[in-house]
Amino acid sequence: MDRRKFLKGAAIGAGASALATPALSQGGKQLTIVSTWPRDFPGLGVSAQRLAARIAQLGDGAFNVEYFAAGERVGAFDSFDEVASGNSQAYIAADYYWGGKHPGFSYFTSVPFGMTTPEWNAWVKFGGGQELWDEMSGEFGLKAFACGSTGTQAGGWFNKEMESPDDFKGLKMRMPGLGGQVISKMGASSVSLPGGQIYENLVSGAIDATEWVGPYNDYFMKFYEAAKYYYTAGMHEPGGGLAFGMNKEWFESLSDYEKAVIEAACMEEHAASHEENIAKNGEFLAKLVNDHGVQVRAFNDDIWDAFGEGAAEVFAETRDHSPLASKIDDSFQAALREMGAFMANFEGGYVNQRNRVLEIG
Amino acid sequence: MDRRKFLKGAAIGAGASALATPALSQGGKQLTIVSTWPRDFPGLGVSAQRLAARIAQLGDGAFNVEYFAAGERVGAFDSFDEVASGNSQAYIAADYYWGGKHPGFSYFTSVPFGMTTPEWNAWVKFGGGQELWDEMSGEFGLKAFACGSTGTQAGGWFNKEMESPDDFKGLKMRMPGLGGQVISKMGASSVSLPGGQIYENLVSGAIDATEWVGPYNDYFMKFYEAAKYYYTAGMHEPGGGLAFGMNKEWFESLSDYEKAVIEAACMEEHAASHEENIAKNGEFLAKLVNDHGVQVRAFNDDIWDAFGEGAAEVFAETRDHSPLASKIDDSFQAALREMGAFMANFEGGYVNQRNRVLEIG
Repeated sequence: MDRRKFLKGAAIGAGASALATPALSQGGKQLTIVSTWPRDFPGLGVSAQRLAARIAQLGDGAFNVEYFAAGERVGAFDSFDEVASGNSQAYIAADYYWGGKHPGFSYFTSVPFGMTTPEWNAWVKFGGGQELWDEMSGEFGLKAFACGSTGTQAGGWFNKEMESPDDFKGLKMRMPGLGGQVISKMGASSVSLPGGQIYENLVSGAIDATEWVGPYNDYFMKFYEAAKYYYTAGMHEPGGGLAFGMNKEWFESLSDYEKAVIEAACMEEHAASHEENIAKNGEFLAKLVNDHGVQVRAFNDDIWDAFGEGAAEVFAETRDHSPLASKIDDSFQAALREMGAFMANFEGGYVNQRNRVLEIG
Repeated sequence: MDRRKFLKGAAIGAGASALATPALSQGGKQLTIVSTWPRDFPGLGVSAQRLAARIAQLGDGAFNVEYFAAGERVGAFDSFDEVASGNSQAYIAADYYWGGKHPGFSYFTSVPFGMTTPEWNAWVKFGGGQELWDEMSGEFGLKAFACGSTGTQAGGWFNKEMESPDDFKGLKMRMPGLGGQVISKMGASSVSLPGGQIYENLVSGAIDATEWVGPYNDYFMKFYEAAKYYYTAGMHEPGGGLAFGMNKEWFESLSDYEKAVIEAACMEEHAASHEENIAKNGEFLAKLVNDHGVQVRAFNDDIWDAFGEGAAEVFAETRDHSPLASKIDDSFQAALREMGAFMANFEGGYVNQRNRVLEIG
């Protein structure tokens, strides 16, 4: 039997319905993936399914890959325990969802005033970040690779203009991670909800505001039905990564070849996911404005200064959690400042001159 | 025989000497790679060797991979004909080296006032760029994937301060691609030299100035021995990609699985190469300044404006070359403006506020 031809046929099931959940490849070691994104969801969901199919393809029979979207096997926020326990082999998630288990997880998604995606990638792969991620995930029996990135996220959706830091007082806003803690310092009430539950809470008035990703991903969430003001750059998730979090014991049982298949597929999708967002955000921002009357705004300097004060408090508290949290923060903040300064003078200097000369912006 | 264990042993040869040039993996289809970078050269050379080893590993016996650095099998600038003829299966190069064959090749490395690496990646993978690259390379019997990126390149090394556009008159400078044509419009004499020949020409005075990559890659070239002024952001190569250019007939003869191995390995290394540069540029810029007395400067607005005028002429001439050159330029310039505007307001807006609040830069 021609195993490659058979696998090629099976891989077509990547976008199949939840009822079928066919294996993307068969034979080999079991790799059950539980995702925190809804099935076929544009952007995040499609990216996760593309990754699962690629692992199946590159593994060429090494893995029996099964993919379950949020809720198909376990709820989105139950993915951590599902994989730590060994019940499934991997989750696809934003690791800051697990900030309640350890605040260090936030650094491996994105933190307020943190690195852009290119900077974060450089820190993780060549600046000691992966080793710290391994140390922290290892405490919970996990091992993760970056497997997706949104780029700099939008400031969020509001039902009023945000004109001063005081406008955050009493605001009920969906914002996970350390960013949520920052707006709490400013008097807001932050909540963490998985993607599939935000819309209903916003429309019902259970929350006043939300952030999600950026124009391309946000478009399909229809938040504009309840909140017309859309803020451009936010402080809360400037870049970073999504996680392919594996059961550590399972990962360590793999051969070097099998580990390489998973790592290469994750790195490829980590880049592709970011690139897809960049390619589509401009087009979908235009649709939001032209087709749905969305009003685009930018936070003013007063609000950014208040974000900065809140973030300083949050980082101090995060460091107090544990020596490991302090060690991660030390590494992250040093890399941010070294790379941030370089990028400001080289890429940033270039972009400023290009946009000035070509009148882009 | 355990083929995987055998391959693992063979892959150790990745950094071996030119005399041995052992296969990185054995059995399977022949994949001879000729590179335009010197063996073991920090940055570009190491990246190319890492890619060859990864294809061998992921292929798991599908390819007999042999890697030759510049000059080990053919000279750097002979790589194109070597692969187009089918004598070797792939080159690793900057495709703008082939601008004399078709000016459209420059867009698939980097062009003056062009996209940053994240923008270029988005255009190539999700904005129609790959299809245009395939069309153009196909005219020469080639098929390429992106396989590396330097990020925004430095403005270059000069033996005097560049204070006005007039300082480019009569200057002999190594600058390939359309960037070289831009400084020619300003009265300079631009030359294209492979990396291994720049130092001797600069020290002998055959050229007055050169650009290469950025602090990390440039450090090992020792240009500071002959030119003390190092300019930060340049206009000539703001981002983009290096090419894994294959003989098209050979690529099309591969199975879907084999094609996926090559594509995934290229995409992984394309990201890693960029990330390594970002991670190391700050550190090596400090070494250049502190250990070698390098003077860092930025081009002023007058020079940038003159660059802009020169670039406009060069793009008009490039478009006149052929309908395909015009089609590539149309796609590139439209994507640049759409993504550039989005990035300026989101990632750019964020970085400006972050650097202001944290006093980075």
